[in-house]
Amino acid sequence: MSKWVYEFGDGAAEGRAGMRELLGGKGANLAEMCHLGLPVPPGFTITTEVCTYYYQNGNSYPKALTKAVDKALAGIEARVSAMKFGDRIAPLLLSVRSGARASMPGMMDTVLNLGLNDETVEGLAAQSGSGRFAYDSYRRFIQMYSAVVLGVEHYNFEEILELHKEERSVKLDTELDADALKALVAAYKARIEEDLGEPFPQDPTAQLWGAIGAVFGSWMTPRAVTYRRLHGIPEDWGTAVNVQAMVFGNMGDDCATGVAFTRDPSTGENAFYGEYLVNAQGEDVVAGIRTPQHLTVAGKNTNGSDLPAMEEVMPEVFKQLDGIRGKLEGHYRDMQDIEFTVQKGKLWMLQTRNGKRTTQAALRIAVEMAESGLIDRPTAVGRIEPQALDQLLHPALDPDAERIVIATGLPASPGAASGKAVFTADEAEAEAAKGERVILVRTETSPEDIHGMHAAQGILTTRGGMTSHAAVVARGMGRACVAGAGDIQVDEKARTMTVRGRTVEHGAWITIDGGAGEVMLGEVPTVKPELSDDFNTLMEWADAARTMGVRANADTPEDARTAREFGAEGIGLCRTEHMFFDAERIVAMREMILAETERGRRAALAKILPMQRADFIEIFKIMRGLPVTIRLLDPPLHEFLPRGAQDMQEVADAAGVDIETVRRRATELHEANPMLGHRGCRLAISYPEICEMQARAIFEAAVAVEEETGEGPICEVMVPLIAMREELEALKPVIDAAADAVAAEKGRRPAYMIGTMIELPRACLRAAEIARQAEFFSYGTNDLTQTAFGLSRDDAGSFLQYYEKQGILEHDPFTSIDVDGVGELVEIACQRGRETRPDIKLGICGEHGGDPASVAFFHKVGLDYVSCSPFRVPIARLAAAQAAITGDNGGDVVKIAREA
Amino acid sequence: MSKWVYEFGDGAAEGRAGMRELLGGKGANLAEMCHLGLPVPPGFTITTEVCTYYYQNGNSYPKALTKAVDKALAGIEARVSAMKFGDRIAPLLLSVRSGARASMPGMMDTVLNLGLNDETVEGLAAQSGSGRFAYDSYRRFIQMYSAVVLGVEHYNFEEILELHKEERSVKLDTELDADALKALVAAYKARIEEDLGEPFPQDPTAQLWGAIGAVFGSWMTPRAVTYRRLHGIPEDWGTAVNVQAMVFGNMGDDCATGVAFTRDPSTGENAFYGEYLVNAQGEDVVAGIRTPQHLTVAGKNTNGSDLPAMEEVMPEVFKQLDGIRGKLEGHYRDMQDIEFTVQKGKLWMLQTRNGKRTTQAALRIAVEMAESGLIDRPTAVGRIEPQALDQLLHPALDPDAERIVIATGLPASPGAASGKAVFTADEAEAEAAKGERVILVRTETSPEDIHGMHAAQGILTTRGGMTSHAAVVARGMGRACVAGAGDIQVDEKARTMTVRGRTVEHGAWITIDGGAGEVMLGEVPTVKPELSDDFNTLMEWADAARTMGVRANADTPEDARTAREFGAEGIGLCRTEHMFFDAERIVAMREMILAETERGRRAALAKILPMQRADFIEIFKIMRGLPVTIRLLDPPLHEFLPRGAQDMQEVADAAGVDIETVRRRATELHEANPMLGHRGCRLAISYPEICEMQARAIFEAAVAVEEETGEGPICEVMVPLIAMREELEALKPVIDAAADAVAAEKGRRPAYMIGTMIELPRACLRAAEIARQAEFFSYGTNDLTQTAFGLSRDDAGSFLQYYEKQGILEHDPFTSIDVDGVGELVEIACQRGRETRPDIKLGICGEHGGDPASVAFFHKVGLDYVSCSPFRVPIARLAAAQAAITGDNGGDVVKIAREA
Repeated sequence: MSKWVYEFGDGAAEGRAGMRELLGGKGANLAEMCHLGLPVPPGFTITTEVCTYYYQNGNSYPKALTKAVDKALAGIEARVSAMKFGDRIAPLLLSVRSGARASMPGMMDTVLNLGLNDETVEGLAAQSGSGRFAYDSYRRFIQMYSAVVLGVEHYNFEEILELHKEERSVKLDTELDADALKALVAAYKARIEEDLGEPFPQDPTAQLWGAIGAVFGSWMTPRAVTYRRLHGIPEDWGTAVNVQAMVFGNMGDDCATGVAFTRDPSTGENAFYGEYLVNAQGEDVVAGIRTPQHLTVAGKNTNGSDLPAMEEVMPEVFKQLDGIRGKLEGHYRDMQDIEFTVQKGKLWMLQTRNGKRTTQAALRIAVEMAESGLIDRPTAVGRIEPQALDQLLHPALDPDAERIVIATGLPASPGAASGKAVFTADEAEAEAAKGERVILVRTETSPEDIHGMHAAQGILTTRGGMTSHAAVVARGMGRACVAGAGDIQVDEKARTMTVRGRTVEHGAWITIDGGAGEVMLGEVPTVKPELSDDFNTLMEWADAARTMGVRANADTPEDARTAREFGAEGIGLCRTEHMFFDAERIVAMREMILAETERGRRAALAKILPMQRADFIEIFKIMRGLPVTIRLLDPPLHEFLPRGAQDMQEVADAAGVDIETVRRRATELHEANPMLGHRGCRLAISYPEICEMQARAIFEAAVAVEEETGEGPICEVMVPLIAMREELEALKPVIDAAADAVAAEKGRRPAYMIGTMIELPRACLRAAEIARQAEFFSYGTNDLTQTAFGLSRDDAGSFLQYYEKQGILEHDPFTSIDVDGVGELVEIACQRGRETRPDIKLGICGEHGGDPASVAFFHKVGLDYVSCSPFRVPIARLAAAQAAITGDNGGDVVKIAREA
Repeated sequence: MSKWVYEFGDGAAEGRAGMRELLGGKGANLAEMCHLGLPVPPGFTITTEVCTYYYQNGNSYPKALTKAVDKALAGIEARVSAMKFGDRIAPLLLSVRSGARASMPGMMDTVLNLGLNDETVEGLAAQSGSGRFAYDSYRRFIQMYSAVVLGVEHYNFEEILELHKEERSVKLDTELDADALKALVAAYKARIEEDLGEPFPQDPTAQLWGAIGAVFGSWMTPRAVTYRRLHGIPEDWGTAVNVQAMVFGNMGDDCATGVAFTRDPSTGENAFYGEYLVNAQGEDVVAGIRTPQHLTVAGKNTNGSDLPAMEEVMPEVFKQLDGIRGKLEGHYRDMQDIEFTVQKGKLWMLQTRNGKRTTQAALRIAVEMAESGLIDRPTAVGRIEPQALDQLLHPALDPDAERIVIATGLPASPGAASGKAVFTADEAEAEAAKGERVILVRTETSPEDIHGMHAAQGILTTRGGMTSHAAVVARGMGRACVAGAGDIQVDEKARTMTVRGRTVEHGAWITIDGGAGEVMLGEVPTVKPELSDDFNTLMEWADAARTMGVRANADTPEDARTAREFGAEGIGLCRTEHMFFDAERIVAMREMILAETERGRRAALAKILPMQRADFIEIFKIMRGLPVTIRLLDPPLHEFLPRGAQDMQEVADAAGVDIETVRRRATELHEANPMLGHRGCRLAISYPEICEMQARAIFEAAVAVEEETGEGPICEVMVPLIAMREELEALKPVIDAAADAVAAEKGRRPAYMIGTMIELPRACLRAAEIARQAEFFSYGTNDLTQTAFGLSRDDAGSFLQYYEKQGILEHDPFTSIDVDGVGELVEIACQRGRETRPDIKLGICGEHGGDPASVAFFHKVGLDYVSCSPFRVPIARLAAAQAAITGDNGGDVVKIAREA
């Protein structure tokens, strides 16, 4: 038979902190505090299994429950002695609180003072010596119980309370005397009877079961259900119910109540940090009616408060509390968030749990706890949520600054940025060249806008999702980006944007917060990120713990520098197409595209070669000693051609052809589904001369760097979009031939590896034979997600909202890898690739490389490295470390990372 | 030690017909004829393993070969008696022929009369009693040997021959006498020596090895290599060499040579069919200098020939030959293509092989052979190449008609059609309504053109490949189509098409041959297909043999009727989107798309519902007793909106909105990659009202049909583009609710199943959980191929040509399924789907359903049925039968089907 109820109190308990699943977080910690000998009001916990039973059995309780509750109630009575539940003379009052495994908004929270009725209230008055206290407790109880158990809306009571205060010409609740409160109670009860057609329950046992039922009932409120769905909390977890003897912080001036953190949750400083109020109940501290006072003198001084600290007012109790603080930290080995009440000079602990903290604080606490020996370094590393590092790495809006938010979009790339609004990439570049800071505002961006995006402080688009071109590129560049701000209309011609009747002209200052997705008028001041020593220390420990390498996706020398600064151990993806969009180069590129013959193409490519070589030389030098994976040209050629008539004319003039030729070529190159079109290795197969030029540029650069520095770069040539072994078989000789040619000309042979992107489902399945040709695989999980799902990330925004609304998608598969589908493809490819070539180097260079849950999965699969945008490198390093620490039980790691 | 040489002759042989791989087709059959006791000139076969050895060992022969050839040569001498190779008095002459496993153009064919030199020629003259014969043989030998062994071009000899004829004022070669021929030989030899710097080889043994080397050498000529690559013949198969004693059909009037088929290769009639020439060598029959004569009197009479038949001229020999005809058919159990020579009244068999025949003939031969008991029915079924049926099912151009071909494109959909050229779908419809026959000419087609394509006799496009919209739809409708005729420029505005300066005006007659890809001026007469009794008989046998069902993809009542006629056992794919393109309906459809609210959409859908219901009622009735799988709306909504400004204005007027609204909506709906966009079940999830309307139309139709006919249709509702189980979980209740509503309203519950298209890689991997919801899977292998390869079939034309040119792609994966990649996904999904739901119904409705090689694969995987366009149903039936007959060794079946 199951045990449905767990008792605790008086330094003993049937439960333990480890029984969180059964007792909920609150119940488990109350039991644990008893074991620690801390003063906890006696009580009991009804287990989460009762909740599960309740829903599996048509909202009914297990038979044995009544008896168990009765027994536990008797246990409380025994522990508090001299008081009995429902007793007229010495009534025992109870608090009833819900307590799920994970704290959950939308659940019933608390009912206090349960057990009061028209008779016991008199007993309470006599016992406490204060009629005012007793009736104040009673009216609070009626109010709370009615709202959460009986469903009588709160405003009913507010109204009556206001009337009574007016009648008596008082302003504060506390100014009402016992009689007034008694009258108030009567009025409350009358209203309830009017509303419900039956009187307020006077039977304490009925009150108790009503409260227990309300807790279980609140598990299935729509808000709770939605919350669980969004956070992946299974329905069968259920909630527990905690019933405890009431203690009162509001029985007089030797009473108090407070909340505290064992360390400063903002800074992480190892100082007792908290607030309390004399003669008050818990809700008063939070409600803000009275100004809470600081616990410590130091806290009071730091905050310039005039109100006395608890340390001064109740030095003995404070000393006891401070001792408990140390005990709890020593026991839980983490910063605690506690609640306490002092009743007539006696301290009672009502709750302890791990405290929420800022990322800064988390870093400091983890490092200091590890340095003091309280925890070990791997534990410290595990304490930081990798994703949270993001806020440290980008500028943030000054929290004190005023802001006028005019629109919101998706928080596509973190960081805050201000600048003049400009509406074309060229303008952005031109203004930036003049030293202006600009925000590039576009309906959506395309590869043609890259130079403008680079020149801008931030990017704002009105269309596209978290993985639109703008979002992906902005994250890669570390630029702030708000994407898909659909309320804004951009008029590129008029050079304005309009949002709900408000027009922002070209050159007007705007600010975007890419972490919050907000668009603001004017220049909102920002604060620059400063990476603390704690950050550096923790990252060192993380690096020591992890087994998987972390590289960066970096296309430019600037990116490469940032990547190295952030600790990247190489470049996992250097996209060469960005190298073609430079103003000078795109002319040659377009010339190549417009050429009718191979000879014409070669002539144009010959102009690009020295520029690419120069790029590679610089990148190789920056990444000295670290591998650089260079991907051959990937996007379809039409991305390099202009769209508008005027631009076409310019291109025609530059190339010395008529505009019709340009237009015809653009039409020829037009594709219905460019994502699935003439791109990647398909370009290299149709135009081997492009592949040859790029290979030459790479190898000439490698040889030049080796000549200059005496050290050859570690150079990995990556062929994109392989679907068939035969494609790589066709291209490898082209690349090798370029190396041979360079070796023959320069008298020095470049060292290099040839590998492929694995980004198509077929490539995953045929990995065994592709690995015969490829010395490394780099998973392109963006395209693999697109093809596995048949889902274009450029277009998905229009319907994925419905998916999320209906709970069809647990998370965006472009943000966090779809372990079940895309993940299986990656696993298949790893396994088959290694079968053919056991030492094949395996990495991933999709957006997922910077997502902690995905990183955990890649660790589990056994990849050699992940590669992500430079600004996410620290996140990936930390996530990889946590994955290694948690062990290879990747499923759990993914779950944990996703829940965090 | 390997045996390199196999001897034969005199009713005995070391080889057998079954040793084709070792001896090549010709050698194996020569040996087999010896075993049958047929008169075969003695000889030997050098095995294909020698060829393999030759190339693996730097073009050298196995050591033991010389001895083996010498021995075999001695064997020939022993069998012919009284003649010796190289002997001056009684010289043995040889023929040397190549003989691979599969006949292969580009290989060296034949050298005759080998062994002649300045001395042996005199012996031959003495032996034959004809100097003219001897020198004619010698000059032929020199000519042939020089061309194929020594590489002296043929024109050299033509030139000399012409000069000699002029000198002697004769017109025919045969008018040259012995002296003239002797002089000719001298001139030939002089030219050779001049050309090569050395004399024509006089040593017979050197001649023999020269010829053998030439055969092996020709295995690697570029033409042979290309042919093998295109036909998937492995390089290591190698070729054999056949060396035989010469027999002469040109030694006088008691000599002859001929070729024959054991049955008529055009009609299949069981009649001896062949031609011969008296006093001639084999090449003369083919060369066309003399008119060949018929073998039989019947043949002579049927063809109205004046020349005497062999039956008349050489009755004894003919009788013997006719006997051999019976013996060979009885032995090989197939129609034979034979070559023979009569030397001085003695018959010699030079070759037998299975004869090529028309499809008509193949059907008749197979059926008659089975009915006569020569073969069994499964063998008969196996004799017809399924693909070949295509030509029977569509009208063909009258082979005797004149044609002016102005352009060629891809043979996108078989059949020939003539009509007036029109350039828009509306014109096509309007003209057709007037009773005109039209050919719709478009740059490319889109779903908006469907009505015009339907109205037209045929479709001609200037862009797009074999799987472009035009091609796919045309094949589905059974319309002739030539696609991607790139030389043609269409000017839609001017209503003309232009090809190399020639302009075809609107209304001018053109003809297209969709089987050949040709575009012709004017109306070329066609002949209608008539399905013979043989066809019907064979298809009955096929149906009896196959285990897999064959359904049709049919969207309209007309399609459904055609499908039933062609033997479809249900509809595997009824695409409902075509039902929206009808002129009336598209107005309502656009109204729906333009509606801003669900209410507005519902109002528009309500107009479409009765029309869809009527469609379904008709289709259900036609398919009575057979299952009908109806796919819910699949294409993205933008496909239903017009593109041009004028059309937009019309739509705006019709919908009562301004054109800006239409334009804005079109922009909103625009997608970068529509193939991966807001389509399939994604539409139904965003707009459940569409799904609801369609489900209602289906169920109301089902109930109405049951009420009318007393028999409910077998109705399968198919949800397209499922990637996640959750999608189906969300939509099933919507469909079920529609059924509930119909049941409640009509008092009759429609019976139905719900299933999904499996057309995305992720769906294949997650098939186990999708099968929890789906009662059937239908593989959409078109989209599965697109997503597995990351390849858009609309765009692939631009680069797949390079793939084919470089041999990267063995076959177009959109035509014949990619067994290795896409196939594995299908297999995974079958296995996982069945694990969850053992009785799940599995079918395929992609284009591959009509491709024999793919059908073989689907049989192997164990699908319940394939579904293809109505006109391919017979092909699929036959292919399925063959797959079942060949057994479950699918790999081989695929190979065979593909080689056929």
